[in-house]
Amino acid sequence: MRASVLLPDRTLAIEERPVPIPEDDEVLVRVSSVGVCGSDVHYYKEGRIGDFVVDAPLVLGHEASGTICAVGSRVPSSRIGERVSIEPQRPSPLSQSTLAGRYNLDPNMRFFATPPVDGAFQEYVTIQDAFAHRVPDTISDDAAALLEPLSVAVAAVRKAALGPGSRVLIAGAGPIGLAMALTARAYGAVEIIVAEVDERRRHAAHDFGATATIDPTAEEPATPLQVDAFIDASGATPAIRSGILALRPAGVAVLVGMGAREIALPLAVIQNRELVITGTFRYANTWQTAISLASAGGIELDRLVSAHYSLDQVQEALEAAARPGTIKSVVQPNSV
Amino acid sequence: MRASVLLPDRTLAIEERPVPIPEDDEVLVRVSSVGVCGSDVHYYKEGRIGDFVVDAPLVLGHEASGTICAVGSRVPSSRIGERVSIEPQRPSPLSQSTLAGRYNLDPNMRFFATPPVDGAFQEYVTIQDAFAHRVPDTISDDAAALLEPLSVAVAAVRKAALGPGSRVLIAGAGPIGLAMALTARAYGAVEIIVAEVDERRRHAAHDFGATATIDPTAEEPATPLQVDAFIDASGATPAIRSGILALRPAGVAVLVGMGAREIALPLAVIQNRELVITGTFRYANTWQTAISLASAGGIELDRLVSAHYSLDQVQEALEAAARPGTIKSVVQPNSV
Amino acid sequence: MRASVLLPDRTLAIEERPVPIPEDDEVLVRVSSVGVCGSDVHYYKEGRIGDFVVDAPLVLGHEASGTICAVGSRVPSSRIGERVSIEPQRPSPLSQSTLAGRYNLDPNMRFFATPPVDGAFQEYVTIQDAFAHRVPDTISDDAAALLEPLSVAVAAVRKAALGPGSRVLIAGAGPIGLAMALTARAYGAVEIIVAEVDERRRHAAHDFGATATIDPTAEEPATPLQVDAFIDASGATPAIRSGILALRPAGVAVLVGMGAREIALPLAVIQNRELVITGTFRYANTWQTAISLASAGGIELDRLVSAHYSLDQVQEALEAAARPGTIKSVVQPNSV
Amino acid sequence: MRASVLLPDRTLAIEERPVPIPEDDEVLVRVSSVGVCGSDVHYYKEGRIGDFVVDAPLVLGHEASGTICAVGSRVPSSRIGERVSIEPQRPSPLSQSTLAGRYNLDPNMRFFATPPVDGAFQEYVTIQDAFAHRVPDTISDDAAALLEPLSVAVAAVRKAALGPGSRVLIAGAGPIGLAMALTARAYGAVEIIVAEVDERRRHAAHDFGATATIDPTAEEPATPLQVDAFIDASGATPAIRSGILALRPAGVAVLVGMGAREIALPLAVIQNRELVITGTFRYANTWQTAISLASAGGIELDRLVSAHYSLDQVQEALEAAARPGTIKSVVQPNSV
Repeated sequence: MRASVLLPDRTLAIEERPVPIPEDDEVLVRVSSVGVCGSDVHYYKEGRIGDFVVDAPLVLGHEASGTICAVGSRVPSSRIGERVSIEPQRPSPLSQSTLAGRYNLDPNMRFFATPPVDGAFQEYVTIQDAFAHRVPDTISDDAAALLEPLSVAVAAVRKAALGPGSRVLIAGAGPIGLAMALTARAYGAVEIIVAEVDERRRHAAHDFGATATIDPTAEEPATPLQVDAFIDASGATPAIRSGILALRPAGVAVLVGMGAREIALPLAVIQNRELVITGTFRYANTWQTAISLASAGGIELDRLVSAHYSLDQVQEALEAAARPGTIKSVVQPNSV
Repeated sequence: MRASVLLPDRTLAIEERPVPIPEDDEVLVRVSSVGVCGSDVHYYKEGRIGDFVVDAPLVLGHEASGTICAVGSRVPSSRIGERVSIEPQRPSPLSQSTLAGRYNLDPNMRFFATPPVDGAFQEYVTIQDAFAHRVPDTISDDAAALLEPLSVAVAAVRKAALGPGSRVLIAGAGPIGLAMALTARAYGAVEIIVAEVDERRRHAAHDFGATATIDPTAEEPATPLQVDAFIDASGATPAIRSGILALRPAGVAVLVGMGAREIALPLAVIQNRELVITGTFRYANTWQTAISLASAGGIELDRLVSAHYSLDQVQEALEAAARPGTIKSVVQPNSV
Repeated sequence: MRASVLLPDRTLAIEERPVPIPEDDEVLVRVSSVGVCGSDVHYYKEGRIGDFVVDAPLVLGHEASGTICAVGSRVPSSRIGERVSIEPQRPSPLSQSTLAGRYNLDPNMRFFATPPVDGAFQEYVTIQDAFAHRVPDTISDDAAALLEPLSVAVAAVRKAALGPGSRVLIAGAGPIGLAMALTARAYGAVEIIVAEVDERRRHAAHDFGATATIDPTAEEPATPLQVDAFIDASGATPAIRSGILALRPAGVAVLVGMGAREIALPLAVIQNRELVITGTFRYANTWQTAISLASAGGIELDRLVSAHYSLDQVQEALEAAARPGTIKSVVQPNSV
Repeated sequence: MRASVLLPDRTLAIEERPVPIPEDDEVLVRVSSVGVCGSDVHYYKEGRIGDFVVDAPLVLGHEASGTICAVGSRVPSSRIGERVSIEPQRPSPLSQSTLAGRYNLDPNMRFFATPPVDGAFQEYVTIQDAFAHRVPDTISDDAAALLEPLSVAVAAVRKAALGPGSRVLIAGAGPIGLAMALTARAYGAVEIIVAEVDERRRHAAHDFGATATIDPTAEEPATPLQVDAFIDASGATPAIRSGILALRPAGVAVLVGMGAREIALPLAVIQNRELVITGTFRYANTWQTAISLASAGGIELDRLVSAHYSLDQVQEALEAAARPGTIKSVVQPNSV
């Protein structure tokens, strides 16, 4: 099969590799669609994210869908032919974190497209049975791939405890920020205020659930917003700070955007209002909710797709994803 | 009656004032013991705490016990003679925060010894019926007063979700830090590590529940502590930072100590471990728990008392409280 | 003013009464619309509900809206002219339940239309400031009144922990059951199965959010439903039993419907699946959510109204409400 | 090795069997102590529990400790020699329940001493690495075995949300009831009322944490107890009913005792007090807490042991366990 690999010198190449063989508890998936994530772009541009360094050829891509074409010995063969969305993680099955229902925090997690674990910019991948989630026909291949970023949003919105009537501030209107606005609306939030510096993205936010947008470079509002929750999808220190100050007493801030090393927070405000500041690391137990939202809950993930690319065009897909005008590039490893 | 007042020029004076008359839903309490809190010392030394300025004579003291000697029209007269611990707050009864069970966050709260509301360094005070908590005979007058700082600890330990088997790091071994160590032990924590710069206080910590102490000015431990919870009772930025880094995945930091304006937090650590950072503002619904802990739960509050003072000695009590060797000064307004 | 009173002999009469004068913390409301509840019908037909006996003239009606026309001394006069929905309860302000955020469980609660407390089938009523909830213009007078049964549904759906993707079984398709189906949909439930014996009501259920209906007199389904939650709005023992058996492991049953004295529950099923069985008693802190749902959340309460009645027609309104074809009768005390 | 097996005709026999070989992720344990549980007695006396029938030779015993003497290929050999307490369950590693943190509810669970899965009345057993919990030297072999019934108590006490100051009613003073009383005390409960018909057991309860006992065959108390929580360890319908009626508003009932098929509960009381009725099925994520309680938290499990038996004496152990005077029989499969 063909795989697109990122080399340590940050060039991309097509490699011929053997089709992987599923383990006992795994399925083999012929990959349909793979969304390009900011982390893929970061590995491509910088060759590393924090301690994770691309020092050997690495297949990028972790937002993937496909069709099951073979199964391991402990998986029912009736699954062959199923259209699935891939949850791209392999936690230790019986680690303390996993048994406690927080498998995303397992210290020995092996995650797609994170050195040295390959991702999905290739024709076939294997994944454990339990992490190949069947999708209904109402969810397209692209949408099935984008259940991954939707899961990021679901994990954050759950921690933010949004529900009918909630008021939320979201910082950042990139693909994750937009997925969060859509998700907030699906959870019943009635005020969804998106703060974003780029005018085009502010405009897009209105199409994806925002009830109002803020240009954070303009003046601060005279009166605090008093929102129930703040979700950061920007990673920008001033945005995080403003967002926390906008919270009502007992409000919750969920920090998802990466970037700032340090964030300086006003201690007395956290105390006097008994605010809760937390973050999310990927997701756990989100796929069924994401599938419901995408099939019945009114979240049209296809609208996030900006353009499609073949396996030979992964570099173009990554370059496009780096431009602010793009919402989501999608690679189709088996297209010609 | 006699009252000790702090004047705007930061001197103390005894004033003769009329005994207050309880409102319909209030009781009149003859004050027995009043603990001296760090905030009393701060008002005395600085004339203000944040936006709260002593610009008129103010009675300090908010850790108080006494005996009910009169009741308002809607309070049963059978309460006269009861020994009580005073919960020194008056929230708006039907505010949104109060109805939601968070009366401590009511924006119109009137709290003892917070300008312009007088405290308990006087012979008599009034308080609403519901906030004069009956104490059993096994709780002394001093201990009944110190249920207030114990309530601060209970509120923090609850947010930290301590229970049997928990491992907790507490920063600061002043009276609040010690109350937290005692409370953590009563909640079943099996490792209670107290970080404190002052050697005498580290020594005291061992007497009040700590299973280990750390000198934060010494070297960092080679391996992270991986505690379930961190409670800050120091208000010191480096302590808060170290405490947060010591948390296990999904751990909780509760920031109680005041002081630092800004705290710089490591964003990636909060995200990757899904930590929760929060604070407490005083307390709500803690007194019954505090009474249980002090009467049956093995917390001997009397051991915190360093010395007693009369109303004429409030200045000495405040000066003593400012010295690190003192744990808790107690004023007895009706002693001679 | 004119009031419709239920006499101990279960006849209704119009009485002339003085307009009530608001207490310091109350408002006077000119009543617009009052929904007829099953409990009103029960008092009318039986003269009692459990220990509450109509042994003196009683004004029925507790689902009420109106316009503030006067205020007590501690309420801002700017509220005069506001259109409001009435939360018809008066808890003790500082009871233990109230301070804990469960004011609906206050043992000294005084609730509209519950002997000896009068309700809203009269031209004017008083209510505490905090329980007269301002409604926007997008909510009609009738809908403002029906925020009360909607609050019953919100309280139940919260306890059932419904959210996007949830699967719920609701027993009973009377006005409360229908409000629950609407609310479940607004909370994101994707399967809303309504069990109801009356065919007309099953039909109505489809108009109010049900994705499927069941005739419980027909055969049991071969395979259990495995729903996340069961909400009973029927009070019928067989319905409760079937509903509990339909739950998935760790599922929740919320029992709202009154009627059965005893319910026989299968102990081993509750244990083996770790089910949670609970009930709701009215509501607390629901109005803002209900207002959001009715104004922005897609719940059209006006569709529940079957017919309008004047104060002289309260008997007709009660008789109509007792018939299965009626969803909701509305009394307009100030109409002519 | 030697194994004690229960035959379908309900006789016991010693069989010679090959020592089991640990799978990749398992350890081999030389068994030290095995407590006799009521379920072992039930299989011995009745040949079945519900749908689980002893229709082939079955090794009983699921409260077990021992020493690791061999490990599978994926387990570090450094574990050999460790003294361990066995958590006697094998859930599917990636089932929906397991990933959600509720592995005890996994429908494909294989549990010790439950047909057709063998238990620990044999010289050696295998168990997955993660379920062989290392114990410190302060915990004896017997106590390490009894961490299993202690885990049952921990699971129940957690659901009952006991903490400092709690008031709890426990029905039944058999070994589980006593473990619950001990656990409730360790969690800080200040009133622990044990209801038990047998006078000797009521007496024992006082030795194991009860602050009061009730003879349920005597008259009902005049005023309701108004406890925060009720835990049933009796399985007796009248006890469950009385326990639920004893709850304060918003109280919790946790039903652990097996026996009654149906329990008739008062619907209006559940609703008017918003009670929560639930059950526990074994335990999940309890062992670390149980180890803490047994080593540092003051629970002396050795005091529960009534007598020891060899593998040849399993029948005597089971007969003794069936007598009310016995608290806990312990089998030592490797003793001579």
